[in-house]
Amino acid sequence: MEKKQVYVGIIGLGTVGTGVARILLEQKELLETRTSVSFNLKTIAELDWNTERDLDLTGVKCTTDAEEILNDPEINVVVETIGGYQPAFGFITKALQKHKHVVTANKALIATHGHELFQMALENGVNLLFEASVGGGIPIIKGLKEGLIANNIESMFGILNGTSNYILTRMHQDGLEFTDALKGAQEKGFAEADPTLDISGGDAAHKLTILSSIASNSFVKYESLYVEGITDITKLDIDFAKSFGYTIKLLAIYRRVNGGLDLRVHPTLVENKHLLSAVSNELNAIFVRGDFVGNTMFYGPGAGERPTASAIVSDIVDLSDDLFSDSAGNGRRAIKIAADVKLIPFDEITNRFYLRFFTRDIPGVLTKISGVLAEHDISISSMVQLETHEKDNYVPIVLLTHEALEKSMKHAMQKILEFDFVKENCLRLRIF
Amino acid sequence: MEKKQVYVGIIGLGTVGTGVARILLEQKELLETRTSVSFNLKTIAELDWNTERDLDLTGVKCTTDAEEILNDPEINVVVETIGGYQPAFGFITKALQKHKHVVTANKALIATHGHELFQMALENGVNLLFEASVGGGIPIIKGLKEGLIANNIESMFGILNGTSNYILTRMHQDGLEFTDALKGAQEKGFAEADPTLDISGGDAAHKLTILSSIASNSFVKYESLYVEGITDITKLDIDFAKSFGYTIKLLAIYRRVNGGLDLRVHPTLVENKHLLSAVSNELNAIFVRGDFVGNTMFYGPGAGERPTASAIVSDIVDLSDDLFSDSAGNGRRAIKIAADVKLIPFDEITNRFYLRFFTRDIPGVLTKISGVLAEHDISISSMVQLETHEKDNYVPIVLLTHEALEKSMKHAMQKILEFDFVKENCLRLRIF
Repeated sequence: MEKKQVYVGIIGLGTVGTGVARILLEQKELLETRTSVSFNLKTIAELDWNTERDLDLTGVKCTTDAEEILNDPEINVVVETIGGYQPAFGFITKALQKHKHVVTANKALIATHGHELFQMALENGVNLLFEASVGGGIPIIKGLKEGLIANNIESMFGILNGTSNYILTRMHQDGLEFTDALKGAQEKGFAEADPTLDISGGDAAHKLTILSSIASNSFVKYESLYVEGITDITKLDIDFAKSFGYTIKLLAIYRRVNGGLDLRVHPTLVENKHLLSAVSNELNAIFVRGDFVGNTMFYGPGAGERPTASAIVSDIVDLSDDLFSDSAGNGRRAIKIAADVKLIPFDEITNRFYLRFFTRDIPGVLTKISGVLAEHDISISSMVQLETHEKDNYVPIVLLTHEALEKSMKHAMQKILEFDFVKENCLRLRIF
Repeated sequence: MEKKQVYVGIIGLGTVGTGVARILLEQKELLETRTSVSFNLKTIAELDWNTERDLDLTGVKCTTDAEEILNDPEINVVVETIGGYQPAFGFITKALQKHKHVVTANKALIATHGHELFQMALENGVNLLFEASVGGGIPIIKGLKEGLIANNIESMFGILNGTSNYILTRMHQDGLEFTDALKGAQEKGFAEADPTLDISGGDAAHKLTILSSIASNSFVKYESLYVEGITDITKLDIDFAKSFGYTIKLLAIYRRVNGGLDLRVHPTLVENKHLLSAVSNELNAIFVRGDFVGNTMFYGPGAGERPTASAIVSDIVDLSDDLFSDSAGNGRRAIKIAADVKLIPFDEITNRFYLRFFTRDIPGVLTKISGVLAEHDISISSMVQLETHEKDNYVPIVLLTHEALEKSMKHAMQKILEFDFVKENCLRLRIF
């Protein structure tokens, strides 16, 4: 029997594209052994051919023109590894219209334009896969979409952004302030020159959008998520959290509650006995609870050339199944949209809170703060006021609360900030 | 378009079979939404229909005769949930010969007879899936076989037996001796009346055999694994391990070294900062290192009605892809056997060791023991001798060693046991 052949074109030879090329070249024999299919890297389109990449591309067509891939009838799988909106969106669109399967790691694009792209793939009888868009090398999309397919997903708690997790880990382990930890992350290559999307929670929100759409079989809108980043966290908060037995993590949260979805990204105090608290540095993990399987966790590297490429190539292999059977284009690999799911308004969600204030060290401060909380039905579970004075005679006060409504907490915080003995830079975090 | 129909027959309505029936009935709509396929539980064969199972089987044919499933041309997927060798083997064989896809959770059978069963499936143009055979509800087989397909698997470290992990956790957390912890596990339903296969390491070895065959694309023989159980571990060892910063876990180990495989199951001291040390109670986890992806971990419930059924139904869904495409029976879901892989003889493996002796409290004991170790090229990294005397004037001595050959350690232990000041019940564990 003749060996089945897959011809791959890669658009974009940056970090991730380089990894994909490397696997297709170095693991060719391994993949053939495991699949009985021959995967051929035919063409790479990239504008910058001057960068040294330590790749032997003998036999691979190297071009600066993506059209050479999109118009090549022999190429049946296109890998998009440019990232960002345009021109990636245009290339993917054209590839799908040319009836080519597409694999991408582009979380921003899938989170914001996935709906129309999946529709386009379906109409053209091909598939669009995106395992690498969430959790880097962790097979979480496959795990969720296939491995846990028999489950209603009740909740997910994910550490989905490696940069912010690295920064928080440095703050915890090395006692750094946020800006110093960020600087270190940039020096080590764990943070971009412009780290906004990472430290603002935006990147984690993209990924949560994708996971939530799969889990709920609905079209979750990125803009509808509540998102808070890690920039306001100080070394002092890290130390307080530690003293209460918690680690601060940027969590992406999915919860099915009262027939709706509670979706949000924010820094969260995680108990030290929970596995997620031990997920350190640039690593990612997703804790998934299904109604039949119970609690599971998927852990691994959330970014980087080799892990991300590992995920992309697993998608290429999955697509090769479709290429050689008549099931191609039946859309079974797309995210299935069953119905709109109601998002619970953020104001109506209850959480336990960590509150940190700086107040002037005068009598009656605590009475007044706790009075406002009580007025808003918020009860305090734990309290610490440190003796260490600042020069300007402000002292830090930390309160942990029992479950309270977000709305109530928002109003209470506004009131508390009106007191002239309270400094503006207070912090409110949630407890997991 | 007419909805695609899958007809399922379940042989064996014990714990796991009941779970599969429950999912097929309760999650029918969910599965249809996600797959556009209708999964119909048609027939259940079970000898004992007197047990109360809290299942509404209206519309399901209930029989005591498995032949009613095997001879029904409409049934295209057979679920074997009897366990054990016979009659399970006979039923699976017949189902495959009748060109029915088969799903099983039977790890003992897959580990020992998988090779011939996969061959039989291939010859009959059908597939045999077994996700539930390792790690219960954790999608580890799929993760390894599909998610990490682009990787040479360099190592795996698995907590694969829930019973022994539960026992060790009770010993660690509640200070119990082995026999009391086992009794507790039996009372809570985490250990069988005859727990031999679990506490001897045999069950974990079955699962390691399966994972190793997938990872290495070779036919690993269950009998060739080195296997040691947890029955000799005492509360004292748990306490010593703790004092050194370790947790004792029963690990199933896979390592690619020098062109061969190092495969074994034995209790192991795991550093407390490693994620595996935090996998408690009846839970399972598999730490997998691939040459591209790096370190990943899959965590979740390793047994039980609902998690195991979750895995079985994910297999049924995967098979439904094959039912409606011409790729059925191309064997792509079987474990691919490429070549025989050499197993490294256990004697030639190096490990760090934990050694615990009871010796008479007389001068010169340590000199003599450390002398024997030195003669065998084994160097000591850490040592504790407790003051607490037993009534018979024996004291415990614990030594941690640097890396040493298994063969050297075996010989050294034989020599040390010849000393008349050493009691027989010594213990040698490995350090991770």
